[in-house]
Amino acid sequence: MFLSEALSINSKGHLEIGGCDAVELAREFGTPLYVMDEGLIRRNCSSFRDSLMKHYGGNGLILYASKAFCAMAMCRIIESEGLGLDVASGGELYTAIKSGFSMERVYFHGNNKTEGEIELAVENNVGRIIIDNREELFKVHRLASGLGRKVRVTFRIKPGIDAHTHDAVKTGMSNSKFGLTLENGEALEVISQAKAMENIIIKGIHCHIGSQLFHIAPYKAAAQTMVDFLDRIRKTLGVELEEINLGGGFGVRYTARHSSIDIDSFIGEICRTVKEECEKRGIKPPALLLEPGRSIVAPAGITLYTVGTVKGGNGFNRYIIVDGGMADNPRYVLYQAPYEALLAHHPQAPAVSEATIAGKSCESGDILIRNIAMPEVKPGDILAVLATGAYNYSMSSNYNRLPRPAVLLVRNGRARVIVKREDYEDIVRNDIIPDDL
Amino acid sequence: MFLSEALSINSKGHLEIGGCDAVELAREFGTPLYVMDEGLIRRNCSSFRDSLMKHYGGNGLILYASKAFCAMAMCRIIESEGLGLDVASGGELYTAIKSGFSMERVYFHGNNKTEGEIELAVENNVGRIIIDNREELFKVHRLASGLGRKVRVTFRIKPGIDAHTHDAVKTGMSNSKFGLTLENGEALEVISQAKAMENIIIKGIHCHIGSQLFHIAPYKAAAQTMVDFLDRIRKTLGVELEEINLGGGFGVRYTARHSSIDIDSFIGEICRTVKEECEKRGIKPPALLLEPGRSIVAPAGITLYTVGTVKGGNGFNRYIIVDGGMADNPRYVLYQAPYEALLAHHPQAPAVSEATIAGKSCESGDILIRNIAMPEVKPGDILAVLATGAYNYSMSSNYNRLPRPAVLLVRNGRARVIVKREDYEDIVRNDIIPDDL
Repeated sequence: MFLSEALSINSKGHLEIGGCDAVELAREFGTPLYVMDEGLIRRNCSSFRDSLMKHYGGNGLILYASKAFCAMAMCRIIESEGLGLDVASGGELYTAIKSGFSMERVYFHGNNKTEGEIELAVENNVGRIIIDNREELFKVHRLASGLGRKVRVTFRIKPGIDAHTHDAVKTGMSNSKFGLTLENGEALEVISQAKAMENIIIKGIHCHIGSQLFHIAPYKAAAQTMVDFLDRIRKTLGVELEEINLGGGFGVRYTARHSSIDIDSFIGEICRTVKEECEKRGIKPPALLLEPGRSIVAPAGITLYTVGTVKGGNGFNRYIIVDGGMADNPRYVLYQAPYEALLAHHPQAPAVSEATIAGKSCESGDILIRNIAMPEVKPGDILAVLATGAYNYSMSSNYNRLPRPAVLLVRNGRARVIVKREDYEDIVRNDIIPDDL
Repeated sequence: MFLSEALSINSKGHLEIGGCDAVELAREFGTPLYVMDEGLIRRNCSSFRDSLMKHYGGNGLILYASKAFCAMAMCRIIESEGLGLDVASGGELYTAIKSGFSMERVYFHGNNKTEGEIELAVENNVGRIIIDNREELFKVHRLASGLGRKVRVTFRIKPGIDAHTHDAVKTGMSNSKFGLTLENGEALEVISQAKAMENIIIKGIHCHIGSQLFHIAPYKAAAQTMVDFLDRIRKTLGVELEEINLGGGFGVRYTARHSSIDIDSFIGEICRTVKEECEKRGIKPPALLLEPGRSIVAPAGITLYTVGTVKGGNGFNRYIIVDGGMADNPRYVLYQAPYEALLAHHPQAPAVSEATIAGKSCESGDILIRNIAMPEVKPGDILAVLATGAYNYSMSSNYNRLPRPAVLLVRNGRARVIVKREDYEDIVRNDIIPDDL
């Protein structure tokens, strides 16, 4: 049996998260239900923060990548842990503003920020705007000038690193949709243009090489490339940048087949590489920023479902069909992402055969887990899908006009709703029937 | 240049839909913007309806599969066209109720209906509940009895037809998550159990063999199988069923590479097959139901985007980056579904090179169209993605906390909002910060 870190088994033999009995949570709050372990979120925050302190004297900042899971309560947790926030849209920025997050620690990302989003960021004095492309630099400068503000920016660079050999996605390659290309001189040219802009304050450079990475090599390669570029900017433009941001992408253990990475040794290696590369070039180590998202929240979350029906067996596929599915967790449909599941009232029940966990959407592809060894399951059982804390709620839809589940935060045996369950009125809230229909 | 049916080019050389200039619509209502041509939706409804009249004396009903696009205004259009409605969840049913749809023409689907959903359906006297599995039959009977109501049901059958050889998905195969298996006797046994239930009125049988089908053969095979089963039910159980429902799945022309199907000849063939198979067996042709969804709305919709930036070229990928993406149209990310796009102010502009249309979400997979021949495009241009009327709004998410676009209904030069654009307050509406955070 695989248990993600957030979980244990209580004296009743039930699944427990944050000191709460999962069966009781399902009964009290209904299903489908996202449950997030506050304690584990906080421990994950502090492990990143403490490692940066230990290996780099705390010269930098850990930014939580809120696209993994964004809600006002989550912003509060991040704020109280002393982390910064990476927001990727006006909606995420608005959530941070409404939660009272310290704006100087908000870093505003995105490969196509609208004018409205940039104005929202500038008016609220966000800590950094990460400039993705040349047009955006001009747009930000024009809007900031119009508002009479100076804006602190960093530049998103494509370091040209292929993290593919390391099982990763390719956000850092020169053909990515994100950022400025290093190898053809574009990045340097755009930074040089920024230097001449009165309302732009250049603070640093940023890269992000991929997601779900389990090997240190591409991070070290990225650190080398970025420090080298920092040095080139200094020599060519005479600008000493204060910070480099190496993004996120730290691998998460979704199932027993995944390895887990040791965050402290990862960050130690990254810090050592940056310091060594700086020393080689005789430059002062810049502030170091990292942007974990998934690795902070994924293992802290589970989703509870009620089994509605069990089908097949006897030579046909065994289907365990739950009251949620691709609408609340589209990651299997999108990426064939693997998950583990167990019964909340008997997590240690021995497997009897393989089954497919399917959802209730009217779509044959609506699968949560395919071919997983499962025990006997019957209608009414509460099924927990593990490590769903990242990119589940944040990617959820109302497909089939299904209301989205509530999100519960649990700690020390107490449960609080941090995102209210949608009801049917939420579903039709924005529907309008014109007079002539 | 490929133009979906809904579109034309006006005297200014701009893209026109429903008599409205697409450039003007973008200016007035903002982007991203879903635009639906009411006239084409109505023509599609009537072509199905008229074909059923012509080939089958109107003995049956066309049900619009609302999961393709569901909103209160859409329910009104369907109602006024005299069609019925296939709903796949409580949320879709609630939308129909709120729109004032005639409940006797509502058919309630779903492979895992919750008790709350079944009660909502029974209390509102829906026309049919389509029973997906044995447990559901018992659940429906128990709940209907509790409410003192009789319920008219049909049974979803897996006819065991592999529409795969016809480029389709496999919802009708015996290993599907949907419905009752024919070949092992399950279907007949469950119907026999229903016969003994006082509050269950058995009306017919249903199947759905797949999606995006362009060949008639699997429909004819399904019709044969279903009539044969009807006959077997009559002979074995002494029950004469009134209706067969052959589902939907009619192929849609998304791009120039797709063929288009002739709805009238398709329905003609289906009707002929049903009549012949009945005649062979000496049974009266049952009422015939069909459930088109995609084919009614997909070609009637377009999505308008504003181009934010254009990147690459000169040996690198050319990216055209718009202000929407996978959050408002996840079909490329989900299925690599192909679409066409053109410039609203100059739809006939000659292509200069290939480009990738990417979105603004912080995700490298956030692509709308990969490698499409495109003209010169510059920031600020309005880009129209074609044939987005189905499974775009209905599958949209708030990923990156992006507010969902408005849906506009256009006809005879008039535009009305039928789904209001979400704003940031909608995004945080259900967020709750507990007192202790």
